Amino acid sequence: MTDPYEPRPEHHFTFGLWTVGNRGRDPFGLEVRPVLDPGEAVHCLADLGAYGVNFHDDDLVPFGSSPAAREAILTRFRAALDATGLHVPMATTNLFSQPVFRDGAFTANDPDVRRFAVRKTFEAIDLGASLGAGVYVMWGGREGMECEAAKDVRLALDRYKEALDLCCAFVRDRGYDVRFALEPKPNEPRGDMFLPTVGHALAFIETLEWPEMVGLNPELAHETMSGLNFTHAVAQTLWHGKLFHIDLNAQRIGRYDQDFRFGSEGIRDAFNLVRLLEDAAWDGMRHFDAHAYRTEDTAGVWEFARGCMRTYLILADKARRFREDPEIRAALQDVEAARLAEPTSPAGLGADALAAVQAEVPDLTALQAKSYAHERLDQLSLEILLGVR
Amino acid sequence: MTDPYEPRPEHHFTFGLWTVGNRGRDPFGLEVRPVLDPGEAVHCLADLGAYGVNFHDDDLVPFGSSPAAREAILTRFRAALDATGLHVPMATTNLFSQPVFRDGAFTANDPDVRRFAVRKTFEAIDLGASLGAGVYVMWGGREGMECEAAKDVRLALDRYKEALDLCCAFVRDRGYDVRFALEPKPNEPRGDMFLPTVGHALAFIETLEWPEMVGLNPELAHETMSGLNFTHAVAQTLWHGKLFHIDLNAQRIGRYDQDFRFGSEGIRDAFNLVRLLEDAAWDGMRHFDAHAYRTEDTAGVWEFARGCMRTYLILADKARRFREDPEIRAALQDVEAARLAEPTSPAGLGADALAAVQAEVPDLTALQAKSYAHERLDQLSLEILLGVR
Amino acid sequence: MTDPYEPRPEHHFTFGLWTVGNRGRDPFGLEVRPVLDPGEAVHCLADLGAYGVNFHDDDLVPFGSSPAAREAILTRFRAALDATGLHVPMATTNLFSQPVFRDGAFTANDPDVRRFAVRKTFEAIDLGASLGAGVYVMWGGREGMECEAAKDVRLALDRYKEALDLCCAFVRDRGYDVRFALEPKPNEPRGDMFLPTVGHALAFIETLEWPEMVGLNPELAHETMSGLNFTHAVAQTLWHGKLFHIDLNAQRIGRYDQDFRFGSEGIRDAFNLVRLLEDAAWDGMRHFDAHAYRTEDTAGVWEFARGCMRTYLILADKARRFREDPEIRAALQDVEAARLAEPTSPAGLGADALAAVQAEVPDLTALQAKSYAHERLDQLSLEILLGVR
Amino acid sequence: MTDPYEPRPEHHFTFGLWTVGNRGRDPFGLEVRPVLDPGEAVHCLADLGAYGVNFHDDDLVPFGSSPAAREAILTRFRAALDATGLHVPMATTNLFSQPVFRDGAFTANDPDVRRFAVRKTFEAIDLGASLGAGVYVMWGGREGMECEAAKDVRLALDRYKEALDLCCAFVRDRGYDVRFALEPKPNEPRGDMFLPTVGHALAFIETLEWPEMVGLNPELAHETMSGLNFTHAVAQTLWHGKLFHIDLNAQRIGRYDQDFRFGSEGIRDAFNLVRLLEDAAWDGMRHFDAHAYRTEDTAGVWEFARGCMRTYLILADKARRFREDPEIRAALQDVEAARLAEPTSPAGLGADALAAVQAEVPDLTALQAKSYAHERLDQLSLEILLGVR
Repeated sequence: MTDPYEPRPEHHFTFGLWTVGNRGRDPFGLEVRPVLDPGEAVHCLADLGAYGVNFHDDDLVPFGSSPAAREAILTRFRAALDATGLHVPMATTNLFSQPVFRDGAFTANDPDVRRFAVRKTFEAIDLGASLGAGVYVMWGGREGMECEAAKDVRLALDRYKEALDLCCAFVRDRGYDVRFALEPKPNEPRGDMFLPTVGHALAFIETLEWPEMVGLNPELAHETMSGLNFTHAVAQTLWHGKLFHIDLNAQRIGRYDQDFRFGSEGIRDAFNLVRLLEDAAWDGMRHFDAHAYRTEDTAGVWEFARGCMRTYLILADKARRFREDPEIRAALQDVEAARLAEPTSPAGLGADALAAVQAEVPDLTALQAKSYAHERLDQLSLEILLGVR
Repeated sequence: MTDPYEPRPEHHFTFGLWTVGNRGRDPFGLEVRPVLDPGEAVHCLADLGAYGVNFHDDDLVPFGSSPAAREAILTRFRAALDATGLHVPMATTNLFSQPVFRDGAFTANDPDVRRFAVRKTFEAIDLGASLGAGVYVMWGGREGMECEAAKDVRLALDRYKEALDLCCAFVRDRGYDVRFALEPKPNEPRGDMFLPTVGHALAFIETLEWPEMVGLNPELAHETMSGLNFTHAVAQTLWHGKLFHIDLNAQRIGRYDQDFRFGSEGIRDAFNLVRLLEDAAWDGMRHFDAHAYRTEDTAGVWEFARGCMRTYLILADKARRFREDPEIRAALQDVEAARLAEPTSPAGLGADALAAVQAEVPDLTALQAKSYAHERLDQLSLEILLGVR
Repeated sequence: MTDPYEPRPEHHFTFGLWTVGNRGRDPFGLEVRPVLDPGEAVHCLADLGAYGVNFHDDDLVPFGSSPAAREAILTRFRAALDATGLHVPMATTNLFSQPVFRDGAFTANDPDVRRFAVRKTFEAIDLGASLGAGVYVMWGGREGMECEAAKDVRLALDRYKEALDLCCAFVRDRGYDVRFALEPKPNEPRGDMFLPTVGHALAFIETLEWPEMVGLNPELAHETMSGLNFTHAVAQTLWHGKLFHIDLNAQRIGRYDQDFRFGSEGIRDAFNLVRLLEDAAWDGMRHFDAHAYRTEDTAGVWEFARGCMRTYLILADKARRFREDPEIRAALQDVEAARLAEPTSPAGLGADALAAVQAEVPDLTALQAKSYAHERLDQLSLEILLGVR
Repeated sequence: MTDPYEPRPEHHFTFGLWTVGNRGRDPFGLEVRPVLDPGEAVHCLADLGAYGVNFHDDDLVPFGSSPAAREAILTRFRAALDATGLHVPMATTNLFSQPVFRDGAFTANDPDVRRFAVRKTFEAIDLGASLGAGVYVMWGGREGMECEAAKDVRLALDRYKEALDLCCAFVRDRGYDVRFALEPKPNEPRGDMFLPTVGHALAFIETLEWPEMVGLNPELAHETMSGLNFTHAVAQTLWHGKLFHIDLNAQRIGRYDQDFRFGSEGIRDAFNLVRLLEDAAWDGMRHFDAHAYRTEDTAGVWEFARGCMRTYLILADKARRFREDPEIRAALQDVEAARLAEPTSPAGLGADALAAVQAEVPDLTALQAKSYAHERLDQLSLEILLGVR
């Protein structure tokens, strides 16, 4: 019998080179795993059933590589892609590791640094586009500050907008079929970062020169660090038509950026999220921006990668069961879930409609007494998750 | 000698009836203070040097009052306003206390509840407008959920938008000179609330029928609950031109909604905020949405109110000193703060400008080595706050 | 076929009168449910399969009741207990609702208030003991502060210790077979509370006159508010031999005290906790200190209560599966879990043992390279939880 | 005129080699500062007015150094100490950087790893003692886990206790005048760490073979990560007689371990802490476990170090003003702060004393109405901090 939770390319699972290639270094400890060759990563991911692999420019071509070294790397990488059929749906720029970005990249106080960041991004877009990436992620790893007096946030937003506008102009100029996806994060490595949540980034996009070219890459861990409900964040992003990419992992509220295996913490939230993505029939990539525990060797890395995908498929199957369960359908009626789709003012926003709302005499006694069966629905949902119904 | 920190009406300090009138009830304890008559509140606030008083409809006219009772209350309240010269710059609706709103107001699943909420808001807008309120605050106290399956967030946002559009239509229909200010909050009293941060609300506004009529009322405590930087939130709100009102208080990260006296926690953040508002010459109301500790009697309430205003004025004075301090001015130059105003691409977004950015050969060695004197600037800022420079 | 998750008295599930009797009032909203008669609560809980019911003095006998009213209440309550066979395993004192405790009870600055609190506790112990309670819980609801200068924490701990010593002396004097269980909480309703975590309370107990009489009542929600791992807290409590009682519910990190239905948030943590309690064969009560959502009417309250117990039994069954699963047993060997039971120094603490440790020449290369298969074990645990193995 | 905030050796300020030597590497970025020679660190710290310097074994002698290299390093370091008069009051072991500790050190599942950790600690104690360190700090950097099933917490505590007992036995065997100070931390780099707070560690100490040899090294950042009140944690530690050392820095609640300059965040909390330490006349070291922002070069590092000490002295001066301010003294009387020192039961714990408490008839009406002037006291405290009184 086939395993119903076996990942296959059509599930659109992707990993970053930096995720399976993570060497286990952390603020208090050295590397524990060897360098993973990008070509080997491609082969292993393909063997596991992934659809694609993503990268920062420096993941693939180390910073400062000579043109010849770069060509050699790209040749090997393309060969691995060709051999396996793995795709590169997304690419991004590393604007945070090098000392030059210590005060930020697009929002560094020094214009030379900002220009260097934009130029590095242009080159990385060329690289991504050459490998077929249709989504370009922008995580502002150093766009923020610790010393509040050092930057006027409003000026920083001016510069952030300018940099995005420049990148959009570049893509238009080149004629690439590339869209940008901003990835918000509240803090770490900076004390506070600009565009700290999905909401702030959505609002920011509306101020851009070409807002239709820019959407979001919400990351589960980043929203969860602030204790915000990630499923709600993704739902609002979908509502705005701006879900261009997504980063899946696991995270405990109010902690350092953990990037754990998808589902390994917050399984209830992971279920709600998968239910949303599947119900919305969202057609984007399921990208895992996570890495194996530092306890693991290379074998553990692949267990980690397999676990991410497998858990997604288990939850997607539960989402289907949720939709089909007759008791849950009845419970959804009890909470009147479908009535939220009815307009409050069926007649619209005109003067007559306003008058109608004002004229309606509610049965206040009945409305005050009215209750909702949320406990029962919530328990039934939990039992679907636990596999006991 | 006059007290330099004595509040006067021109400072535009305001309080809500529910703030100085808070009776000290909390989830684990009963009321400890008597009911405060709105007229008495007006007189005391005027004596303390406040500019205005704000209210929820039910603060002023208890829910379910007869028309006669309502008239009597309003007559006394107007008399107090007239006698003192106190203004009513803002009003709002209580859509959270009554059982009818237990599943939400604008986003309740039952359309009858939603219509009742809209109608109650219309009436409260009439009341506010009749007393001169130019800003109408919207806090979605019950717009959220605990049981994730009970609501589709996207439908809830549809209904939230519809309700806001209806309220805007009503104001236009009546010809009022009123603007709306959304007040985001991440959670409490609901497990998770819609529009949880300043960012989410800013993005939401752009989807409304009349976005220019709607801005924000950011609340220090609400953003701080999520650990977000409130000063940055206000800065981004100003950047979008959407700071219509502000709620000042004090709050510890990751706790219940504390609404403490302004400055009593997070004094560094309070200073940064005041510095931002004063530097931006923001001309709105400084509203204190806070209440006295439950340890206090009525005398303690007025100490609390006096403390809120006094601390603001102390910090505003420090903001002035910050601007004028020669060592700080020099330190700001060292961190190159002003250069953040320089365009990254002086030539704009055209093809030539893109080419210029790409052609610029940076002195990478110098840029990698370049550092910034943030520690010194931060320490000088702290010493201004502590009054030792 | 019988339902394998049907609660029965031998499962030792208990509820407080204040939990099923919670009327849904919160800081922003009024009561939504009618008063629940204690006798009715007893009957309903017995019908649901609970073992016992617990109370604060004021839950059962309202504060200020006349002796006659008190007797009538107790007679009815005893009759309900007799009729149903429900037990009263635990009782406690309400030292937080009345205004008299606004500055604390055992740590109030005023000695008269402290004496009143001790006396109220004595009377409540008499009441609890008369109904058979063997555990007396102490939650210091108002023992804390907002204004840091108002109390010297060290003096407050002196007084806290004195009050506990007095209560122990009282129990010894009366010859009751009663043990005390301290319930830590970090904050709410006070800004900061004394004995904020399980750890602080465990340390405090060691300073008491009769430490053997005092243990803990850890509450899931309270530890989780601080983001601490509740399962670890309970494990350390067991390790100290101090788990006298436990409060089960659900809570999101860094929020107001939610007291949700057990398992409704943090299901992974709930599973780890149940696994610990069941593996340790802990013989105490499984008390649910939680309440129904404010959306619910009385029927929803009983759904809530049923759900708490049912989820516990589902998780206990999964804990059994976890123990018996052959792949998990193999994975536990891979992570060398059992070797943690081996002494590090088999020869003890003597000079020879120290010399042996120093003399051992480790194969450092092998130890540096050694890794652990935590990802695989964690994924298998998750799949037990999800019911897919 | 002399600077009143100029640090001098008698202030007992100390820094770790790893603090001023921090090179600015973080999870997302490479080193930005050169290696700092320990000898140079000693000279610079002495020039700034510090009293001492502390180290992990590997800070001073890199892991794997040959005996000859080690001797050369120690000779240079001793020469610098002799030349400057700087002391080494504390030393500690690095049990977290090397891959061998990836599953823990004292609580690793593999007994060989545990023995290696104990042995490494023995050698480091020898090193510390040889340089005069009287306090030996124990931070369990890797004692914890992510995969809950991988370790039984109770067994881990057994091993943790065994390791501490071994270290105490070693110190006794050698006849060193050394005490141990445990440093709790809730998480990072492990998902959850054992002994997560000051409380858990205090309780743990009581189970050791020689509890009098072991106390705490509470760290501001570590308690604050969990949102706990650090001043209260230190007060309870003092109350237990267990404050053996302290780590001062700055941290935002619910974030990654920031280790910012003392006072740069949470200045109110820093003031309360300094007030506690100064009022208690605590005679230990004021150690700064912090590092400069990654924006800084070496000059910025020394600005950072100067700022830590200067801010402490500013706050200590304010603590003195607080004690002497007549209005504050009056306000403290209003809140009855001194009455917390009065016994609740003046007659003790005997039967007569219990009877006296029970016999006392309180004036309940008066007690219910009694309030406290906390708002005023809190505002006065704030104004001392802000330097406006």
